[in-house]
Amino acid sequence: MEKIRIGIAGYGNLGRGVEAALSQSSDMELAAVLSRRTALKTNTGVSVFPLDSAADHRDKIDVMILCGGSRDDLPQQGPALAAHFTTVDSFDTHAKIPDYFARVDAVARSSNNVAIISVGWDPGLFSLIRLYGEATLPQGHTTTFWGKGVSQGHSDALRRVPGVAGAVQYTVPVEAAVEQARNGQGENLSTREKHTRHCYVVLAEGADQDRVRELITTMPDYFADYETTVNFISAEELARDHGAMPHGGFVIRHAKAGSGTGHKLEFSLQLESNPDFTASVLVAYARAAHRLKSAGESGARTVLDIAPVLLSPKKPEDLRRELL
Amino acid sequence: MEKIRIGIAGYGNLGRGVEAALSQSSDMELAAVLSRRTALKTNTGVSVFPLDSAADHRDKIDVMILCGGSRDDLPQQGPALAAHFTTVDSFDTHAKIPDYFARVDAVARSSNNVAIISVGWDPGLFSLIRLYGEATLPQGHTTTFWGKGVSQGHSDALRRVPGVAGAVQYTVPVEAAVEQARNGQGENLSTREKHTRHCYVVLAEGADQDRVRELITTMPDYFADYETTVNFISAEELARDHGAMPHGGFVIRHAKAGSGTGHKLEFSLQLESNPDFTASVLVAYARAAHRLKSAGESGARTVLDIAPVLLSPKKPEDLRRELL
Repeated sequence: MEKIRIGIAGYGNLGRGVEAALSQSSDMELAAVLSRRTALKTNTGVSVFPLDSAADHRDKIDVMILCGGSRDDLPQQGPALAAHFTTVDSFDTHAKIPDYFARVDAVARSSNNVAIISVGWDPGLFSLIRLYGEATLPQGHTTTFWGKGVSQGHSDALRRVPGVAGAVQYTVPVEAAVEQARNGQGENLSTREKHTRHCYVVLAEGADQDRVRELITTMPDYFADYETTVNFISAEELARDHGAMPHGGFVIRHAKAGSGTGHKLEFSLQLESNPDFTASVLVAYARAAHRLKSAGESGARTVLDIAPVLLSPKKPEDLRRELL
Repeated sequence: MEKIRIGIAGYGNLGRGVEAALSQSSDMELAAVLSRRTALKTNTGVSVFPLDSAADHRDKIDVMILCGGSRDDLPQQGPALAAHFTTVDSFDTHAKIPDYFARVDAVARSSNNVAIISVGWDPGLFSLIRLYGEATLPQGHTTTFWGKGVSQGHSDALRRVPGVAGAVQYTVPVEAAVEQARNGQGENLSTREKHTRHCYVVLAEGADQDRVRELITTMPDYFADYETTVNFISAEELARDHGAMPHGGFVIRHAKAGSGTGHKLEFSLQLESNPDFTASVLVAYARAAHRLKSAGESGARTVLDIAPVLLSPKKPEDLRRELL
């Protein structure tokens, strides 16, 4: 069987995670890495080409996995690369997904490519669970918790505070709120009531600790409305104790069936590495994207559109025998 | 919008659960109930027709939901009704699914109908979670626990024991085994090590308690290999305390990503009524079956083949905005 030839666009944590994930899928191979930094060396020795030469590689790559960030990279790269490749990405700026979907869809359709957007765990597997929950039990409510885990967006916000030399922010679910949701009383909990924010901050030389703490805890949107703790640590402690990127969370649905009986679904993830798991999900959906493209389909899709069977390298009859 | 016209074949607990579930789906309506017992009255007043007159109703029903049992009803009714209708069923005799799939598929294809088989929670939602787990993280192991809940098959086995006038059997997960699985050591646990069996038995008049207990605990396959407790209760207690049919369970996957980081997925269900929840899942897949049939597809499918978006009455753009 010919292997699915994968390209990686962007070689940060996520790109390296995809490279590693491909080693677990014998039906795929890494064909090329595209990056702005062409001097870098990849872990597997695969060649790096300039991102703006992407079009030159269109005949050597079946699916391009986009590993850039949602804020600066994907809004431009998503549509641009869908013109040349069938793509998979993890675009996760929730409010902008409809617009991003439309823009990628237009390009993918006119280029006869498939583009699966917003793949990962949230959006991604959590979205699927929310859909299975509400489709099977329409009358109920679904509550999502995130953490304990590192929030990239909030860590970035900390690093922009004057006087901060380094920082990591953990989002932590409030135990009492989790219990409330498990008992079916989670319907009206706000994100703020469900989570606390724990900041580990390295002060810049000469910065005032109280002033930095004040700037952080009063920052609108990010911290002001949350129970926020700020711990000052050394640069050595930050590097030693906070280098990993764990994350996770859970989705809980409480609902009543038509007859009035009560039912609860819960799905949880505990991830030692957020980018590694997101990468693993991207690779499975790259397989699906290739199959859809091979079947003559085109346009944008999300995880909600993808039949589960398309994610597995196994034959449908084997999956029926092993998993049903 | 025209409503999807649903038929119910078999009016036991599951059939009544489907009837109740349809009240939560405004895009569907119950058109007819088919049963061997035509004298019965339905809860919603919908007419009952003889099961063997099914073919007469083919123009009045878009999807027939098969609510018979896997042992005696579905092996015959599945193929027979797929000749006239697009169908959904909850066939759950694991070892016979490949054969059943093939027989239903042949009929459905030649009749231009769609037949989604083995729908429910296990097989069903649990199968989906097992697939999502192993497709995204290929190197790991998945453990499934069932319960606490009433096992219909084991309860039936108890009732066949001489000296038993009535009985219910609960399957209960072993707490220590659950903890083992959550910690990633569940790989080699057998079904026997993971579950205990709790029997509530009403003795027939004049039956010997010790003899009945002995017959139960030594019954091969069902009880002999399990830690089994037998509690003798009165007929009144059986009716009062054991009439509900709760069930549930969980699927746990532990796996390593390509880079070596560890990841855990867990999905759990707590169901006050097994037949009510199974019915709710059947109704969602009936919507998908109708959409596939309307799109010109035919043949047998399982939950693994169905794109999640097909289960929801909402528009794809609304689902993307609300769930991603």
